[in-house]
Amino acid sequence: MRVTVLGAGYMGSAMAKVAAQRGHAVTLWGTWLDNALLDVVLEGKPHPRLGLALTDLRLCRAEELPEALCNAELVIHAVSSEGAVAVMTRAAPYLPDVPVLSVTKGFLANADGQMDRIDRVIPEVLGRAVRFVHAAGPAKAVEIARGVLTLMVFAGADAIACRDALAGGNLRVAVTDDIAGAEIASALKNAYATGLGLWDGLGHVSGAHNARAACFAQSIHEMCQLACAGGGRAETIYGAAGVGDLHVTAAAGRNRAFGERVGKGKPARDVAAEMLASGELTEGYAAIATAWRFAREHHVDRLPLLEVLHQVVWEDVAASEALARLDLL
Amino acid sequence: MRVTVLGAGYMGSAMAKVAAQRGHAVTLWGTWLDNALLDVVLEGKPHPRLGLALTDLRLCRAEELPEALCNAELVIHAVSSEGAVAVMTRAAPYLPDVPVLSVTKGFLANADGQMDRIDRVIPEVLGRAVRFVHAAGPAKAVEIARGVLTLMVFAGADAIACRDALAGGNLRVAVTDDIAGAEIASALKNAYATGLGLWDGLGHVSGAHNARAACFAQSIHEMCQLACAGGGRAETIYGAAGVGDLHVTAAAGRNRAFGERVGKGKPARDVAAEMLASGELTEGYAAIATAWRFAREHHVDRLPLLEVLHQVVWEDVAASEALARLDLL
Repeated sequence: MRVTVLGAGYMGSAMAKVAAQRGHAVTLWGTWLDNALLDVVLEGKPHPRLGLALTDLRLCRAEELPEALCNAELVIHAVSSEGAVAVMTRAAPYLPDVPVLSVTKGFLANADGQMDRIDRVIPEVLGRAVRFVHAAGPAKAVEIARGVLTLMVFAGADAIACRDALAGGNLRVAVTDDIAGAEIASALKNAYATGLGLWDGLGHVSGAHNARAACFAQSIHEMCQLACAGGGRAETIYGAAGVGDLHVTAAAGRNRAFGERVGKGKPARDVAAEMLASGELTEGYAAIATAWRFAREHHVDRLPLLEVLHQVVWEDVAASEALARLDLL
Repeated sequence: MRVTVLGAGYMGSAMAKVAAQRGHAVTLWGTWLDNALLDVVLEGKPHPRLGLALTDLRLCRAEELPEALCNAELVIHAVSSEGAVAVMTRAAPYLPDVPVLSVTKGFLANADGQMDRIDRVIPEVLGRAVRFVHAAGPAKAVEIARGVLTLMVFAGADAIACRDALAGGNLRVAVTDDIAGAEIASALKNAYATGLGLWDGLGHVSGAHNARAACFAQSIHEMCQLACAGGGRAETIYGAAGVGDLHVTAAAGRNRAFGERVGKGKPARDVAAEMLASGELTEGYAAIATAWRFAREHHVDRLPLLEVLHQVVWEDVAASEALARLDLL
């Protein structure tokens, strides 16, 4: 099968490696931001972010988008949510009518300016259907690439075709038709994982495991309400796409670390600026704002944890003060 | 209110401290195994396990059980599951008809030798009703005692009375009538947390976060099946009693540590013996056996993770080998 991966960052490179392991002919296309990464890989060195060699792949630079998409039988969309509209707009003239498996997490603004899912916003922008399948579940890129046991959830009408193309070895794939629930879970988990990280900061001296675990349960409860308000199903949140992905995101990674530093008392905007300056993305910072917008636009008004997170990260309220007021019941 | 706490270990001492903070007249009774702990506390020193001073409590030694229970208006049962039958048999003649809030986790054998809940086995043994309320949820004793934000779930007919007596400050209490679901969640979480710890051992060099998170979601799925088979409700597992308590137990504590050491390749019985010798309880070791018995007795036969845990911990199968075969779908 001919598989084209759009986006050569962490996740795109990892998925390209997986597709090559399955025996597919894989093209990895990098955006204009990825050219420096691809230059290194083209010299035969390991991918600078993933830390692993990428062999047996055709590499395409940003200007080679038409060639990259030509005759593709499966497209994997691994561009960040910020870049998704720009990339897909340029890709549209060359995009074949094949499944597009998206590993992108996060809401986008639709034509009315409201927060919505990528599988709805992109077709709206392009004025044509795109056969989006959303990939959810706990899947750190480097571990997928290394063959660590991983359970992903593919959601959408073409989920089975994507699973058949990519599952194998230690990559297990569950399928569901609940693309709304799966995308909303993926968009929310960075926000809530940042919130759980706050407790790692607040409790770094004497421990706040009870509070963190109470907020983990509360996160799942609030994610359910938001998923259902957006047309998804609670069962999706209770599975690997919700409970599993929140677990891995809150255990390791930049969003948790961002929360921890804010929990220790530093203003969120300063931490975000510092992390940005050192090249670390903190999706959770923006994700809290977009989740809060999504909640208000969908009239979900009983979200005490998300409300507190928004106060801490976007309204300059001290974490210790805001969390002391948290109404968990 | 006059509150009597049975059992002066970690959790009994912490709950006694909470009850005293609420302004109650508290008696803390120690079992025959707790006399050494109480001797230290009676000298005015901090409780040896909890590490905190216990003031404003009446302390009773094992032989003072009748005095300890006399005129109690609320009893808190904080004896381990192994000691519960022995203690409650001795307590029965003096036990007033008041709510008995039990923080004990784990199944007991009923008259037919089958695994069952404490709130059913103890009344059967005693031949009289006991107004059990089960306390579930993520609640490390030392953090409750220190006033860290904690969400507990009280389950049973008298749950509201127990909540009204004990909730306050940073101790939040949710109530439910699903005592079956709450007790089964509490009994299972040590077993599954041990299983998640295995991945900390197996992945200690290069990481196995994806696998751990997939198994976290799988644990919740299997706990739901077991809770429903035992007459409980799935919603209880999806809340603080299940998702929340599994999170805290798998993040910190002896059961996770036990699993980690087994995951590094040491036979489970050797790790259990070493931890026992150094005074560390590993409830997870026995909990995997009792959970497996409970599953078979309730004819729940699709539990791939629990089956693998039983193989690793009780059937001498290497963790790496058993987990490589794990069928997550």
